[in-house]
Amino acid sequence: MGKGNLLYEGKAKQIYQTENESELWVQYKDSATAFNGEKKEILEGKARLNNEITSLIFNYLQENGVDSHFIKRLSETEQLVKKVDIIPLEVVVRNVIAGSLSSRLGIEEGTELETAIVEFYYKDDDLGDPLVTEDHIAILNVATSADLVALREKALAVNTHLITLFDTMNIRLIDFKLEFGRTQSGDILLADEISPDTCRLWDKETNQRFDKDLFRRNLGSLQEGYQEILSRLGGASCTK
Amino acid sequence: MGKGNLLYEGKAKQIYQTENESELWVQYKDSATAFNGEKKEILEGKARLNNEITSLIFNYLQENGVDSHFIKRLSETEQLVKKVDIIPLEVVVRNVIAGSLSSRLGIEEGTELETAIVEFYYKDDDLGDPLVTEDHIAILNVATSADLVALREKALAVNTHLITLFDTMNIRLIDFKLEFGRTQSGDILLADEISPDTCRLWDKETNQRFDKDLFRRNLGSLQEGYQEILSRLGGASCTK
Ligand SMILES: Nc1ncnc2c1ncn2[C@@H]1O[C@H](COP(=O)(O)OP(=O)(O)OP(=O)(O)O)[C@@H](O)[C@H]1O
Ligand SMILES: Nc1ncnc2c1ncn2[C@@H]1O[C@H](COP(=O)(O)OP(=O)(O)OP(=O)(O)O)[C@@H](O)[C@H]1O
Ligand SMILES: [Mg+2]
Ligand SMILES: [Mg+2]
Repeated sequence: MGKGNLLYEGKAKQIYQTENESELWVQYKDSATAFNGEKKEILEGKARLNNEITSLIFNYLQENGVDSHFIKRLSETEQLVKKVDIIPLEVVVRNVIAGSLSSRLGIEEGTELETAIVEFYYKDDDLGDPLVTEDHIAILNVATSADLVALREKALAVNTHLITLFDTMNIRLIDFKLEFGRTQSGDILLADEISPDTCRLWDKETNQRFDKDLFRRNLGSLQEGYQEILSRLGGASCTK
Repeated sequence: MGKGNLLYEGKAKQIYQTENESELWVQYKDSATAFNGEKKEILEGKARLNNEITSLIFNYLQENGVDSHFIKRLSETEQLVKKVDIIPLEVVVRNVIAGSLSSRLGIEEGTELETAIVEFYYKDDDLGDPLVTEDHIAILNVATSADLVALREKALAVNTHLITLFDTMNIRLIDFKLEFGRTQSGDILLADEISPDTCRLWDKETNQRFDKDLFRRNLGSLQEGYQEILSRLGGASCTK
């Protein structure tokens, strides 16, 4: 099984065809971007960290009955996944108010929500990934309302499992972004990545950030933060 | 019955207490503002036009069974209304894509929607009146989900009646913003105004604008546009 043509190059990953029509080769990149690509840097080691963290998390989710595109880790910076048609929605789950929700509602970052909420953003860089309502999604014709029920349910199930996982690591799961895609048979499958690039992860005692806000807000070394997540994850998954 | 203390001065109206605790005196203003107050001008005659148009529309809605805060027109620029606790949500109904929805979704202005949609914006000038989802509204604690069902239903009923009214005037109702409030007895009542400041109104044949976009986008005389609406409304309501 070998790496075929480059199908797509995003900000964080390259996607290659394989000999198997239904599988893709994902190459993680060392580049970090924020604010829709406005801030950009090469951060050595990020590819390895996100590939390993994502692989451990997708494995953990699969052990807990949550299917995803993940097949296996191929190398320090590569993995094999099932090819899907990505639904152009960023599905965001929030347990604590932070980031854009804090600015939108004028509520202090760190405020605990009574129950987790799910938001949908339209994946379109030119439009700046705008927040969309279910009516907007119907207009865009990217998902049916039955799809949205399924996406919400799947996202909340991931949330429940991730809260449990991070809790054992003494980490508070603030929020995260998921992407889903459709398989050839029409099923909706969790895809893309779950890493400190796509989650907000705070130390439970000190509120120290271990996620991309380190880079967005110049709070310290991104690699040190991501390494801390990988170390604690390794610990957590070894004791299982 | 006389005008009491000034309770509140907004961008388009002054609100005065009356001797009756449950009634307010509304004084329309000649000022026009756009982009959250960034663009501002005095446009003589606007107060009279919006007061008369709003009065005719609230009368028409009441004749069609839609209650509102409107009691009566007092003068060219003043009206008497029932006092309510305004729910801090702008309830927007859209029949055709325009304005911020066109930019949000990247769909051309003028695109007809298959069915009308309702959006909620959080009324907060400091935050720029952001779009909010039902989950956000629950977090803000400004309306229950039962309230939202009622608001949506009331807004769509207003839409049905307004489409019929404007249709007789050869005008396409593109979108509009409503505000609702709670009475002492806890009922939700339609309030504020319905005027070319709060609706997008296009001529059915020429697509000529007769609404605040004249001012926002420097498309021509606001007063001439609003006068055209008042004239056609007068005609429409005389034939009833
Ligand atoms: N299993 C999959 N099948 C097909 N595409 C996938 C799969 N998993 C992830 N992708 C897509 O791979 C692309 C590359 O990922 P990357 O994170 O680099 O993109 P990005 O810079 O975030 O840009 P985009 O805005 O396109 O997501 C993304 O568009 C992502 O949606
Ligand atoms: N029946 C009512 N009882 C109490 N307040 C009302 C009623 N009808 C309208 N209002 C409020 O009167 C205020 C003045 O109206 P105006 O349109 O000038 O405000 P505005 O500049 O749009 O500012 P705001 O952001 O406060 O709405 C608004 O806040 C509106 O919500
Ligand atoms: Mg990505
Ligand atoms: Mg107003």
